[in-house]
Amino acid sequence: MAKTLVFGHKNPDTDTIASAIATSHLLRHLYNWDTEAVALGTPNEETKFALSYFKLEAPRVITIADTDDVVLVDHNEAAQSIDNLADVTVAAIYDHHKFNFSNSTPLYIVAKPWGSVATILYFEFKNNDVTIPANIAGLMASAVISDTLLLKSPTTTEADKVALSALSEIAGLEDYEKYGLDLLKAGTDLSSRTDKE
Amino acid sequence: MAKTLVFGHKNPDTDTIASAIATSHLLRHLYNWDTEAVALGTPNEETKFALSYFKLEAPRVITIADTDDVVLVDHNEAAQSIDNLADVTVAAIYDHHKFNFSNSTPLYIVAKPWGSVATILYFEFKNNDVTIPANIAGLMASAVISDTLLLKSPTTTEADKVALSALSEIAGLEDYEKYGLDLLKAGTDLSSRTDKE
Ligand SMILES: [Mn+2]
Ligand SMILES: [Mn+2]
Ligand SMILES: [Mn+2]
Ligand SMILES: [Mn+2]
Repeated sequence: MAKTLVFGHKNPDTDTIASAIATSHLLRHLYNWDTEAVALGTPNEETKFALSYFKLEAPRVITIADTDDVVLVDHNEAAQSIDNLADVTVAAIYDHHKFNFSNSTPLYIVAKPWGSVATILYFEFKNNDVTIPANIAGLMASAVISDTLLLKSPTTTEADKVALSALSEIAGLEDYEKYGLDLLKAGTDLSSRTDKE
Repeated sequence: MAKTLVFGHKNPDTDTIASAIATSHLLRHLYNWDTEAVALGTPNEETKFALSYFKLEAPRVITIADTDDVVLVDHNEAAQSIDNLADVTVAAIYDHHKFNFSNSTPLYIVAKPWGSVATILYFEFKNNDVTIPANIAGLMASAVISDTLLLKSPTTTEADKVALSALSEIAGLEDYEKYGLDLLKAGTDLSSRTDKE
């Protein structure tokens, strides 16, 4: 398969960035696809905190795809995607939102009504026996924490609890509650926000 | 979860009937859903041959759903579905076609660009450690054979080959090539067709 860009929605949050990076890794190992995780914007303060903590680079920012094939994560609706979505082939979707998607070729879709895409991806790695690198597991744990507000949001499922616990262990995160509060605090830090707003 | 109907497309083929029966079984064991496999029409001659061979009943025929929740297999487009699709909640989709689907709530979707939905379901059973009963495995093998024309159609993938071999073994089908020719012949049998046409 030719070069394939993997990205989440506009105004990226931690789940969108983490899921792009994790899905890119998964598809390279599962189907041998030549993937690159990119993003439709720069990371927010919360995501920057997680990337820095786990020593990962922010993905390259794009607005249109310059490849024929793309993979959508954490979204499926055209309004939230690249500007030239109608001109490219969607090869796969990993999402946890309502659907509003139409295309012209069969594709891979994994969707579940769970708290985060990172949770869905944890089980895809596990069921397909693909090892999750420790730093990517840490970013995925951050995504679960972010989307479920540390397992407190009403969208939280049993699967999210299992995934957060397992991802924290892989990441070597001894106290995910403490880390999670620091992460969520970084996202709501007024001092850093005031600079821009 | 309240009673949930599981069905494939109008003018059902062997993959649609087999996938409804297999998905109903999978969801009962995986998520404890109260499912019933139904169909949007009576089985064709090929499907009747497979049902009879593996001693399974044809699913009840419906045109509208009388439950709030439904699961779509082997299709996702409203035109191929029940007449009141807009009035019910789609809880899950298992499909291998292009997509044209829109709804208002997060849901389960497993889609892959493979030769049959039965192939996708074989891997769902396997990855989730749910045992496939021998007769359902036989019907699923029949669906792979039907949709891929005994692994000869251009839509055939490596996954279909693996699934057909494994399903045949579970079903106790010693020679799936011989069975497959009989199955495909039943579907094109002019003598039975002439009676009706
Ligand atoms: Mn998001
Ligand atoms: Mn999300
Ligand atoms: Mn079909
Ligand atoms: Mn089919």
